[in-house]
Amino acid sequence: MTEDALVIFTPSGKRGRFALGTPVLQAARHLGVDLDSVCGGRGICSKCQITPGYGEFPKFGIHVDDEALSEWNSVEERYKSKRGMIDGRRLGCQAKVMGDVVIDVPPESQVHKQVIRKSATQRDIVMDPATRLLYIEVAEPDMHEPSGDFERVKQALAEQWQVGEVETDLHVLRRLQPVLRKGEWKITVALHRGNHDARDRILEIWPGYHEGGLYGLAIDLGSTTIAAHLCDLRDGAVLASSGLMNPQIRFGEDLMSRVSYAMMNPGGDVEMTRAVREAINALAASIAAEAKVASADIFEVVFVCNPVMHHLLLGIDPVELGQAPFSLALSGSLSLPARELDLSNLNRAAQVYVLPCIAGHVGADCAAVALSEEPGKSDDMVLIVDVGTNAEILLGNKERVLACSSPTGPAFEGAQISSGQRAAPGAIERVSIDPVTKEPRFRVIGSDLWSDDPGFADAIKTSGITGICGSGIIEAVAEMRMAGVLDASGLIGSADQVGTARCEPHGRTHSYLLHDASVDGGPVIRVTQGDIRAIQLAKSALYAGARLLMDELGIDHVDRVTLAGAFGAHISPKHAMVLGMIPDAPLEKVTSAGNAAGTGARIALCNRAARDAIEATVHDIVKIETAIEPRFQEHFVNANAIPHAVDQFPNLVGVVSLPDVSYNPATSGGDGGRRRRRG
Amino acid sequence: MTEDALVIFTPSGKRGRFALGTPVLQAARHLGVDLDSVCGGRGICSKCQITPGYGEFPKFGIHVDDEALSEWNSVEERYKSKRGMIDGRRLGCQAKVMGDVVIDVPPESQVHKQVIRKSATQRDIVMDPATRLLYIEVAEPDMHEPSGDFERVKQALAEQWQVGEVETDLHVLRRLQPVLRKGEWKITVALHRGNHDARDRILEIWPGYHEGGLYGLAIDLGSTTIAAHLCDLRDGAVLASSGLMNPQIRFGEDLMSRVSYAMMNPGGDVEMTRAVREAINALAASIAAEAKVASADIFEVVFVCNPVMHHLLLGIDPVELGQAPFSLALSGSLSLPARELDLSNLNRAAQVYVLPCIAGHVGADCAAVALSEEPGKSDDMVLIVDVGTNAEILLGNKERVLACSSPTGPAFEGAQISSGQRAAPGAIERVSIDPVTKEPRFRVIGSDLWSDDPGFADAIKTSGITGICGSGIIEAVAEMRMAGVLDASGLIGSADQVGTARCEPHGRTHSYLLHDASVDGGPVIRVTQGDIRAIQLAKSALYAGARLLMDELGIDHVDRVTLAGAFGAHISPKHAMVLGMIPDAPLEKVTSAGNAAGTGARIALCNRAARDAIEATVHDIVKIETAIEPRFQEHFVNANAIPHAVDQFPNLVGVVSLPDVSYNPATSGGDGGRRRRRG
Repeated sequence: MTEDALVIFTPSGKRGRFALGTPVLQAARHLGVDLDSVCGGRGICSKCQITPGYGEFPKFGIHVDDEALSEWNSVEERYKSKRGMIDGRRLGCQAKVMGDVVIDVPPESQVHKQVIRKSATQRDIVMDPATRLLYIEVAEPDMHEPSGDFERVKQALAEQWQVGEVETDLHVLRRLQPVLRKGEWKITVALHRGNHDARDRILEIWPGYHEGGLYGLAIDLGSTTIAAHLCDLRDGAVLASSGLMNPQIRFGEDLMSRVSYAMMNPGGDVEMTRAVREAINALAASIAAEAKVASADIFEVVFVCNPVMHHLLLGIDPVELGQAPFSLALSGSLSLPARELDLSNLNRAAQVYVLPCIAGHVGADCAAVALSEEPGKSDDMVLIVDVGTNAEILLGNKERVLACSSPTGPAFEGAQISSGQRAAPGAIERVSIDPVTKEPRFRVIGSDLWSDDPGFADAIKTSGITGICGSGIIEAVAEMRMAGVLDASGLIGSADQVGTARCEPHGRTHSYLLHDASVDGGPVIRVTQGDIRAIQLAKSALYAGARLLMDELGIDHVDRVTLAGAFGAHISPKHAMVLGMIPDAPLEKVTSAGNAAGTGARIALCNRAARDAIEATVHDIVKIETAIEPRFQEHFVNANAIPHAVDQFPNLVGVVSLPDVSYNPATSGGDGGRRRRRG
Repeated sequence: MTEDALVIFTPSGKRGRFALGTPVLQAARHLGVDLDSVCGGRGICSKCQITPGYGEFPKFGIHVDDEALSEWNSVEERYKSKRGMIDGRRLGCQAKVMGDVVIDVPPESQVHKQVIRKSATQRDIVMDPATRLLYIEVAEPDMHEPSGDFERVKQALAEQWQVGEVETDLHVLRRLQPVLRKGEWKITVALHRGNHDARDRILEIWPGYHEGGLYGLAIDLGSTTIAAHLCDLRDGAVLASSGLMNPQIRFGEDLMSRVSYAMMNPGGDVEMTRAVREAINALAASIAAEAKVASADIFEVVFVCNPVMHHLLLGIDPVELGQAPFSLALSGSLSLPARELDLSNLNRAAQVYVLPCIAGHVGADCAAVALSEEPGKSDDMVLIVDVGTNAEILLGNKERVLACSSPTGPAFEGAQISSGQRAAPGAIERVSIDPVTKEPRFRVIGSDLWSDDPGFADAIKTSGITGICGSGIIEAVAEMRMAGVLDASGLIGSADQVGTARCEPHGRTHSYLLHDASVDGGPVIRVTQGDIRAIQLAKSALYAGARLLMDELGIDHVDRVTLAGAFGAHISPKHAMVLGMIPDAPLEKVTSAGNAAGTGARIALCNRAARDAIEATVHDIVKIETAIEPRFQEHFVNANAIPHAVDQFPNLVGVVSLPDVSYNPATSGGDGGRRRRRG
């Protein structure tokens, strides 16, 4: 037998020769193999489990005999009997190399585990959170070489974990001496690694080996709702997801009205800051309770939000965001202690990371979408639209990515629509209109049945039919266009012109009767000419923004379209394209990314390197300000037609037929006074 | 005329050739000449005043003609007419090089001014404080290249002042947009440079060019008193010095009794922390008021203190400092925002720097003494003694420096002395005893007259004669020894043995009557045998500590002795040596450094590099723990005699005569139960 042996790790394939007696964990570290350990090889944490392979390995040209590793020892036996361990597994810190061997590192023993996301179209998150638990053994004080206990903790971190300069808070220093003595000079620390050149920081300490929780919150702070995911920072699992209404709504429905509130009311920004921080505290408490997690075990919070929410969260008056040149007080990312934002239902040393903003109208939420969807890594030309009160639009491929924001207004969310409501049980969410009879059928949130299915009335008995939500109004307008109820200019025909009594006179225009109150005693639900105009304004703004970015890149079509946002998840691609919300593309290439901003927040929470990546990405993104681009207005006017006055939709033509009708209004209508508004 | 010209700066002698038209300030910066500027060369701050020299300069071999600089311009004229400027001076940013020239930089135009300290034996402080004011011109927002206002501030700092990564607080971010707009994109920032690799931080911002105050506090936080100097961080001037009693005294007179209080009373440490922080707040407010300085203009605080005060200031329970192995929670220096210490009467972003501790008994105060007295730069062997309740002792030269602490107890401060009191008006501070008549004369704090001078009674009428302070008791004991009233073992002779009625029976021993109440109706002031024993214990501890360090270096004498501490300033070197407080040395080489710890704090306040220097010095100092050195006890016993049982005092012998007397006590006395105590 030679004095060293060949060790091959799978699945990495990394290999090297090591002196007999070398622990497997040590060999793994030497080769840079991704093998976890919290206790640093002391047989306490059991994170370094490995599976040795025996017998012939023709692929590697070696034979592994039964004595390739040292014998099963008492540390392993104790662990297995107390906690259980899969047969054939060994502890990497205990098993020593005694001959040529092949070692498999199972996925759960890897530090940088991949979290498999449910949707196959989305990429996985590699776990590498900013905060981790480290077990250390600290030198005892020596009167001949006096040094502070904290200095010896730093020394242990440097020697045992190769950690550089470390800081901590007074509250940790205050507890350090009793904790060290209670743990008999063995402690576990929660260490937060700063981004860029910022120092590492000890957030919390426990006596001995601590196998406690380590959690983080990914928060998507929207104008209307605040949504949070509570994630386990060890494996990326989402333990709970929860949301609540943004209480700032009482100061104004949309962003511009909140900026106005701050401008008109001295101290108004302070009121709104307090309201949103209180709501986040309430949300943190409720989500922790829901997941049965101690608030003190939440160490990280990541925020994504639009610029106005960003400023109000940080306590900065958003007034400059309400007027040209729309300057942000701060555009870069921000790392700071959660207590500076008055966030209390967390570990007292919890750290906040706020993603960078892209521009005055394109916020950290859009940056999060870019982090999740990675347009800058795309081979084909992708258009990403995050639909909300404002639409954030990204366009590009790995050559170049552009971004802008477009003031769609709240129509897509059911606001400013005669029977509009938020997406909630009772709201019509899907609509279909028979092109021959012009009769509608629909689905209501809370049931999978269509209105002409048997049992529909029973299924919706609790909620009733209360109104129409954003996706419902988009489908209704698109279906009206396909059924010939509506012409390309957006005019609803009269009963005579269309051939259905559902087209009723409505003031000086016509409306389409979607649901008659006589059926269930609920409200009458119509699509009015005003509703059509509101949707036209919103979709024109969205399309014009996308078109502006296409001009900038000199392209006239995109390869694929991604609809992001909770709302985007419910939009039917076909209907969106019939409406002309988005440019033409193969329908199967129009997909939903779900809450991509929330996913981006989770990625930044679970993977530290992603924070650097998004900062670089945001720096490289070309920002287009729609407000100062003269062509925006031209694109906006042309996009008013359904689907469009000029642009062709070849992919759509093969799938749907759009009747070539033209209606006169009952009168000339009254759209002259309506203007797009930001917010 | 050539296209470039020779520019020679004095007093530095730096020289170089510059293109004609180069502003003098730019030439100075290029050569690294120390020429101040806050506004960056924009003719606003006038800090860059220089004096051109004309005519022959044989030393440099050049002739400077009248047109060597560009003409006096309107910026200079405006400044001179409004603010005044010495004739012959020019503004370095306005005057351009037009020919060979010699430029003198007057001291007040140097950034790194030297503050000349009054005492010639002490070194000067070079001004280089951590916080400075910088004027910047910030790019306006551009919708085509959107970036945050803060990002453009950072860019301006990088471009105009070569400042790297910068952080700031939310309160600055909150005010940034209005301040930038009020100053029309010109602002002044107070920038704090972090030590080591810590980032720079903007503490405060003002619109436009701000010529405001920039102050710092150097605080010597002692067990008994808290002393503060308010310094101008621009020129190092001490604007006010003030002090107050440490309110922790109500929890215990000395350090050990405070540690005991914390051990015996749950939450006792929190009480003491609150008390000392409140006192510091009060002191900060009163010293600012005294100097007529706005609290918000105080940006820096430096603390020096012993380890127990250090921990209580930081809110750390000092219990571990009360028992072996006397471990510090933290020994390194600490930089943190003042608000974390609840210090409120400062700028809200003010930064605190706490000097490092040397060991569990040798604190940041001793580190400050090392910074002030620099034993590590000494060619000869210097012993530095900081006399207080504990004595901190430094011994060494540029080869090696040792430190220890010795538990002298409070006798040197007048405590545990029968007629003892703190140094205050009415206290006897100097004593002389006639070797023939054995009659005393003395001086009292508050008057320069001796007790046998005409007019003495009038001079002390207000205060009376109330007791004896530390320096007084030391002189009294030493004078008693020189006059033969006391023998080498420390026994007071009887009236018969000594030949004066002032030696009175006192219990089972004798006392010496220093002041008879019948003279003025005040208290009778005696030096009792118990007082002698208390002083012997204190001085033995001090001497034994010094001797232990001498052993460690293998030396039997020192070249010079420095007495530090407010008390050290009042000790007469001759009397200290007669008493055997300090080892023998030439009397003229025994000097006082005044409040060296306070000076060290001022140096760390005014010079950032000194902070790095003291950290390196503390690291290199060899720490000796007296409690575990067996020879300490032996040295202590030998040092009980006056001046010493074994060691010779050759330098003393030539100056004073010590009568070879030996007295029997009236009885055996009662010292057996007395023990040295730490604290």
